[in-house]
Amino acid sequence: MIQNAQAAITCRFEVPFEFQVFFTEGVFDPSNDLLRQVLRSGGERREKLLAVIDESVIAAIPQLAAELTAYLAGTNVDLVCPPVAQVGGELLKNESAAVMQLYGLIERHGLSRQSFVAAIGGGALLDVVGFAAATAHRGIRHIRFPSTTLSQADGGVGVKNAINAFGKKNFIGTFAPPLAVINDSKFLDTLPRSGKAAGYIEAVKVGLIRDADFFLEIENIADELNRFEPAAMHRLIRRSAELHLEHISGSGDPFERGSVRPLDFGHWAAHKLEQLTSFRLSHGEAVAIGMALDVIYSRDAGHLSGSDATRILALIHRLGFALFVPQLLETDTLLVGLEEFREHLGGELTITLLKGIGRGFEVHEISRDGVLRAIEELRERDRDLAAAR
Amino acid sequence: MIQNAQAAITCRFEVPFEFQVFFTEGVFDPSNDLLRQVLRSGGERREKLLAVIDESVIAAIPQLAAELTAYLAGTNVDLVCPPVAQVGGELLKNESAAVMQLYGLIERHGLSRQSFVAAIGGGALLDVVGFAAATAHRGIRHIRFPSTTLSQADGGVGVKNAINAFGKKNFIGTFAPPLAVINDSKFLDTLPRSGKAAGYIEAVKVGLIRDADFFLEIENIADELNRFEPAAMHRLIRRSAELHLEHISGSGDPFERGSVRPLDFGHWAAHKLEQLTSFRLSHGEAVAIGMALDVIYSRDAGHLSGSDATRILALIHRLGFALFVPQLLETDTLLVGLEEFREHLGGELTITLLKGIGRGFEVHEISRDGVLRAIEELRERDRDLAAAR
Repeated sequence: MIQNAQAAITCRFEVPFEFQVFFTEGVFDPSNDLLRQVLRSGGERREKLLAVIDESVIAAIPQLAAELTAYLAGTNVDLVCPPVAQVGGELLKNESAAVMQLYGLIERHGLSRQSFVAAIGGGALLDVVGFAAATAHRGIRHIRFPSTTLSQADGGVGVKNAINAFGKKNFIGTFAPPLAVINDSKFLDTLPRSGKAAGYIEAVKVGLIRDADFFLEIENIADELNRFEPAAMHRLIRRSAELHLEHISGSGDPFERGSVRPLDFGHWAAHKLEQLTSFRLSHGEAVAIGMALDVIYSRDAGHLSGSDATRILALIHRLGFALFVPQLLETDTLLVGLEEFREHLGGELTITLLKGIGRGFEVHEISRDGVLRAIEELRERDRDLAAAR
Repeated sequence: MIQNAQAAITCRFEVPFEFQVFFTEGVFDPSNDLLRQVLRSGGERREKLLAVIDESVIAAIPQLAAELTAYLAGTNVDLVCPPVAQVGGELLKNESAAVMQLYGLIERHGLSRQSFVAAIGGGALLDVVGFAAATAHRGIRHIRFPSTTLSQADGGVGVKNAINAFGKKNFIGTFAPPLAVINDSKFLDTLPRSGKAAGYIEAVKVGLIRDADFFLEIENIADELNRFEPAAMHRLIRRSAELHLEHISGSGDPFERGSVRPLDFGHWAAHKLEQLTSFRLSHGEAVAIGMALDVIYSRDAGHLSGSDATRILALIHRLGFALFVPQLLETDTLLVGLEEFREHLGGELTITLLKGIGRGFEVHEISRDGVLRAIEELRERDRDLAAAR
């Protein structure tokens, strides 16, 4: 604080935030009281609700919109229009038109700050709807229903939203905690294999940098995860979400205004790989490769033992992820990702490396040669795997 | 909080905010250390700064950009490009292109969350730049230099930003406290008469609803204010800013998520009058009329004494404000403003009325006939005044 200065006025306050992440099955089943409770938590007044559903979810559960409509008919909340179908996926985040369309619906149907905006879908859809909800009227109450393993375990349970701009991921966004997050395991049944597995990799990530026991647990249930057994998936999602929320509430800087960083590992390269592949590589697939890269880099820099590195790469592979894409060889563009990463978070470059399983630490410099060597090793490993097939 | 619910995870945290409002004269004078201190408060690292200046300020102080540039040359902060001139005023807030242009500059020059975005101008420009700064990278540090009496006393010192959409004021925005606000009295010298007086009305407003002593003080210095004497203007701005900041930090709900309302009086009609006049009526002029309307309404509803009402209308008039515009007669459109006001703030309609000078209170219903009668009285008063001239 600056003293003197001709008697400045100081404005100081704290804003308390609280939200819950719920786990349920069949959230719109008439006998399931959870959503009724969530909607009532805002008060007894009659309120409006706008619902947006990922088209891939509707394709898998065609009766979903009807179920939601019927469920709300028994509550104090009015659906302002039939649930809006929206094509999800990362490309949606490049479309500022999608946000404008949501603003238009919010305006036309007269939603207020005390109304509800509900989003059912993957992380990209939740991000776009969350940004519109956070900025219309300076913030409408937002309920998230993450529909993928990845969003239930990671992106959907946090306090951020964003859209992309200028070819940069999450360039525009806010920190805005949702009113509630509802993880419905039924949505997971509808996912293709790759969609089911995509969340595994962020769980491995959080285990690697924060919780060795969780990493070991994932290793132990890797076969069940590979078969997509519900109990194993639920365990992975729940613990991953828990660790994320602990990081948010325990960091002392949940809105990352100081030097606190999100739970990132392998993400600087991942963001760039998504772009280089025009988002044909999913976020999970890109993170798997980015993590493999930073595991090898950590080992070569003398931080991580060779046996731990081998063990980590083996788990990523066992969970069904490739460790290489040809776009990794576009190294000049890839390395620009390091600078973009610094720009987005601000201040010094801060990259997480590993000094052991469950033991992430931060460095502020990355050697270009080290990255190139790690990429070369990933290419060789990929070639060997291909030869062995 | 919802209990049970299959062992939900609860995420709970508090975010502390602190910023200062400084009063100075000649902020870019090389001998003035204030801005150097503010810039250093973020750390010793070399950082980038993007500056946006209201064209009307540049027109009045052509050397301002050069002064700013020279001032920063002696600091640890790099101006990323020459200060950007931007046409300010309420119409700017209708242009989402202005926000996109700012995003573009932030991106092109590689600003990060730890960089600075400085805005010098009136409330509308501060709102637009503030919104871009708050949402690029999820929030870049923002320094405000309000250049008008109104923005120094009211809009510029708060925690909000916004742009207009769908013909609705502030439809899109966020709550995002600035890093600092610097009120430089030199900017006020450059204002036209109407611009100097525009801030008076919000000061009267805050006195009326919160602080009778402040209202009396404004009455006592009304002649000095009318002559734009610096000491009187400074006193008015400082106390008004103080009361606003007390409301923000003392309300327990600075981001208005519950039922706490901003310090509004007369604003429901004012917002609509601005639109009905295509913003030819300034915000201050519109608020003067909106306040006069709600003063008469308060009196007729039996809350406010006739002598207090007369006294308030007299002060508004003495400060140079008209109490009527023909657009007040477009009553159907005007009354839509009540519903839009409810929609923006959410929940019940909440309108502030007066039960005395310094004693605002909230009602949740407004009688249409009462509004029409108050408008009729304002028209008659205006006619009488015109006849007397």
